[in-house]
Amino acid sequence: MKKLINQPENVVRESLEGMAAAHPDLIQVRFDPTFVYRTGAPVQGKVALISGGGSGHEPMHAGFVGTGMLDAACPGEVFTSPTPDQILEAARQVNGGAGILNIVKNYSGDVMNFEMAAELAHSEGIRVLNILIDDDAAVKDSLYTQGRRGVGTTVLAEKICGAAAEGGYDLSRLAELCRKVNLNGRSMGVALTSCTVPAKGSPTFNLGEGEMEVGIGIHGEPGCQRVPVKSADEIAEMLAISIIEDSAYTRTLREWDADRGEWAEVELTDPPLSAGDSVLAFVNSLGGTPLSELYIIYRKLAQICENKGIKIARNLIGPYMTSLEMQGCSITLLKLDDEMIKLWDAPVFTPALRWGM
Amino acid sequence: MKKLINQPENVVRESLEGMAAAHPDLIQVRFDPTFVYRTGAPVQGKVALISGGGSGHEPMHAGFVGTGMLDAACPGEVFTSPTPDQILEAARQVNGGAGILNIVKNYSGDVMNFEMAAELAHSEGIRVLNILIDDDAAVKDSLYTQGRRGVGTTVLAEKICGAAAEGGYDLSRLAELCRKVNLNGRSMGVALTSCTVPAKGSPTFNLGEGEMEVGIGIHGEPGCQRVPVKSADEIAEMLAISIIEDSAYTRTLREWDADRGEWAEVELTDPPLSAGDSVLAFVNSLGGTPLSELYIIYRKLAQICENKGIKIARNLIGPYMTSLEMQGCSITLLKLDDEMIKLWDAPVFTPALRWGM
Repeated sequence: MKKLINQPENVVRESLEGMAAAHPDLIQVRFDPTFVYRTGAPVQGKVALISGGGSGHEPMHAGFVGTGMLDAACPGEVFTSPTPDQILEAARQVNGGAGILNIVKNYSGDVMNFEMAAELAHSEGIRVLNILIDDDAAVKDSLYTQGRRGVGTTVLAEKICGAAAEGGYDLSRLAELCRKVNLNGRSMGVALTSCTVPAKGSPTFNLGEGEMEVGIGIHGEPGCQRVPVKSADEIAEMLAISIIEDSAYTRTLREWDADRGEWAEVELTDPPLSAGDSVLAFVNSLGGTPLSELYIIYRKLAQICENKGIKIARNLIGPYMTSLEMQGCSITLLKLDDEMIKLWDAPVFTPALRWGM
Repeated sequence: MKKLINQPENVVRESLEGMAAAHPDLIQVRFDPTFVYRTGAPVQGKVALISGGGSGHEPMHAGFVGTGMLDAACPGEVFTSPTPDQILEAARQVNGGAGILNIVKNYSGDVMNFEMAAELAHSEGIRVLNILIDDDAAVKDSLYTQGRRGVGTTVLAEKICGAAAEGGYDLSRLAELCRKVNLNGRSMGVALTSCTVPAKGSPTFNLGEGEMEVGIGIHGEPGCQRVPVKSADEIAEMLAISIIEDSAYTRTLREWDADRGEWAEVELTDPPLSAGDSVLAFVNSLGGTPLSELYIIYRKLAQICENKGIKIARNLIGPYMTSLEMQGCSITLLKLDDEMIKLWDAPVFTPALRWGM
């Protein structure tokens, strides 16, 4: 294992210490329990946005804390869910009296711990709603997950909902928006290499020199097929077509009813993509793949979308939701409406995503 | 070789096509000869900034074309200098009547071809000055280079001089500023793995499982020592101390005298760093190293600077000058003055670096 680290058990803490040293104008870091929050939070009267999950996916989520995006991020150990006390403590720190929206990727540990944290916050009189992101079109159930995994759409939901919170949306309207972003986003990834979790010291999975894993999870969970390595154009086509032709997906998710203080089951259905739609196209590096290759993927993706009558109205290209040093990429297509476009374009100022300010 | 590419010979072209498709508001791409220019260029009355060099270092340079940074970038094939006709054609495209500053990394091929291009532009009545960047404190001469190589300071010079050009500096004043940035910047890198040039298909150099190359060049050129892999703290210290304790460096560089239309030799000396200085600290990924590890390096770098009485007034952390998928990092320290700080903070809007607009 070759990494720029010290002791494997200190990777998360030292990386956060580095972030705190680098960006004091944007973020503050607390330890034990560990969370990152926006400098100056709480913002009175604004709904606070919190997300979190295992570390190893940087810049997600701590890199998205700042003006116009998250109020707090709760990083677990590498590929390990954050604990309820981290999430609760973050909620106490950033609560500005207008409630808290937790954006939760659909992994069993994350879901469970964000649910516990929501109940604890509720018992303290903090109004909290949790919205799940489950956009991975590759597999229905997976290691660590019931139902679809939450992947690339998470980044887009954090940006769009962050702008909405900044713009004065109340908690219910913000939750509705976040649900809409999730339902309109679909993703799929491919890995060319494994990654190595520092504490383990050896690759998470083995992939032959000529193989790639299609539908890879962001923790190296198996995807839908392992096939010989293909060209960039073939890979882009494989991912894009799977996303574009993915049919309507209906699932039942548990959502917290903040008024009743209990969980309710909500049935939700994805609207499929079709000709005439406008999308945000997000081509994401899994960590070890350079930008030049992402643009080669984007080139083909743009051609495919054009052929399908789908207009790419916005795009995002780079390493935003990674799996340590894994080589590979993911594509996310988010069907846009005017509300989402306006919120996407709104100013954002965080360590990893910034424009307009 | 596992890469998200199609035919190796099309890597540069297809990546640029992807960039053109992704950012039409910011950049335009021309082929044969190939260059990238700012949408809307020429800007009448503004000095135009051009840079270029071999591809494989993305986002440098094409990702830095846009408002407040470069007017054009000339990408060669992977790790291969751009040709004079690329540079001349870019100059014709972006010349707004106030002259052109070429920012040239000190590699023999780049220097020669930018010199030829400057002479050709001169013969067409375009006023051009070339300023060399030679900031690599690791080695004095290297494969492909007489004198120090040009590395991380290039990115900072492009940002700072781009803001100055936007703010109305004339060509002479801009060249003076660029020279100052170069003389005040020092860099050093370390590689944990090699990279693989697509056309070659095999690693550029061999590094044992337990080894790292200190002072690595951005094309995989040998550094100053090959040693067992060390901890992040030891690596940060090794690089930072080499930079901070680097003594004054005097060299003779060829600069074009635009008025006389001939080359002149200029003797220049780096002022060394000392306690009380303010710096911009740039921690750069060589491509395959994830952001979390860069922050672990930054954490230690900040401690070292504090102990040495050096104030980090600004920082930049991420993959900005890469070597394909090489794992490793480089550190650049740029001694700042008020002029440079003000220009660093000025708005920039390019595919890879943006704030304030």
